[in-house]
Amino acid sequence: MLYAQIHLTLPAWVHDVVDTGRSYPGDDAKVELAIDLARRNVDAHSGGPFGAAVFGPDDRIIAVGVNRVLPQSCSLAHAETMAFMLAQQRIQRARLNEPEPGVKSGPVTLATSAQPCCQCYGASFWAGIDRLLIGARSEDVEALTEFDEGPLPADWIGELQRHGIAVVRDLQHDTACAVLRDYGRLGGPGY
Amino acid sequence: MLYAQIHLTLPAWVHDVVDTGRSYPGDDAKVELAIDLARRNVDAHSGGPFGAAVFGPDDRIIAVGVNRVLPQSCSLAHAETMAFMLAQQRIQRARLNEPEPGVKSGPVTLATSAQPCCQCYGASFWAGIDRLLIGARSEDVEALTEFDEGPLPADWIGELQRHGIAVVRDLQHDTACAVLRDYGRLGGPGY
Repeated sequence: MLYAQIHLTLPAWVHDVVDTGRSYPGDDAKVELAIDLARRNVDAHSGGPFGAAVFGPDDRIIAVGVNRVLPQSCSLAHAETMAFMLAQQRIQRARLNEPEPGVKSGPVTLATSAQPCCQCYGASFWAGIDRLLIGARSEDVEALTEFDEGPLPADWIGELQRHGIAVVRDLQHDTACAVLRDYGRLGGPGY
Repeated sequence: MLYAQIHLTLPAWVHDVVDTGRSYPGDDAKVELAIDLARRNVDAHSGGPFGAAVFGPDDRIIAVGVNRVLPQSCSLAHAETMAFMLAQQRIQRARLNEPEPGVKSGPVTLATSAQPCCQCYGASFWAGIDRLLIGARSEDVEALTEFDEGPLPADWIGELQRHGIAVVRDLQHDTACAVLRDYGRLGGPGY
């Protein structure tokens, strides 16, 4: 039997906590949302301790994502990749920041609770974002949990910048690390 | 409005051409299938010139993938990532080669018509494969088409090997390049 359809979902609780009408001006507010999603995902046992959100030029949410790897048996279902796919499905474009005639353009931002692993790092090049906002570093993830973040190019930030993607790190760093620390203490995965 | 569901599909023609009962012993036969899928995807105008397949220890197909980026408005829908997600959905495990009590284990193989881009490279670390078989090189892709393959770690093959993934390149190389060359001549994308 040949499988030909993939169906991935966010947990139902996102509808109760995410307000797409709200504006998130500034980098800290955006990463705060990503970290809040990570925390809620752990609390709800709906996936790993990672959250992300894609914001449009108006600082409003285009889509959010949380880690769904184990609940959905899908190694691609990281927080960042879920947010990318959902944002692209919503605006029906494979590259989020591709200019469209007659539509006001501006920066598209991904905020993530922790530095993208090697998979999400690679995905960031093709998703069509202009800015990447990061909470915890990969060193934090690997120190506080059992997750492997995988290999990156030596100058990983420079590579993004050369593709037009600005990187800001260490936003809400302590709050981001607290989620990872609590998850690590619980002995996760198992979520 | 918050999007919370992602639905991705392979083109309908895969059901007519993929025989999951057939065995594909040897590396060349596996990559031949991946290249054939790439060729058919171009001919059917159902996505970019890339194909991939995941094989179980018995040399039979677990899942196949083709590039679906533009038809499905999804930058994650590369051939390799589609094959990974479909294989994981079929066997209901996030890591394909994770040992399961009472189930015979053995190597899981990804065959791909062209070297994984930075996104699919990263995804290969978490999908649970033991072997990665490659047709065309990234240099070929970038020379023969307009695709950017993105940055990789300097020792990208070594990084895979240290994660237990063996790499074989240049399988059916000329046939793989021919698909890319024909696609490039057509002036793709636009598919």
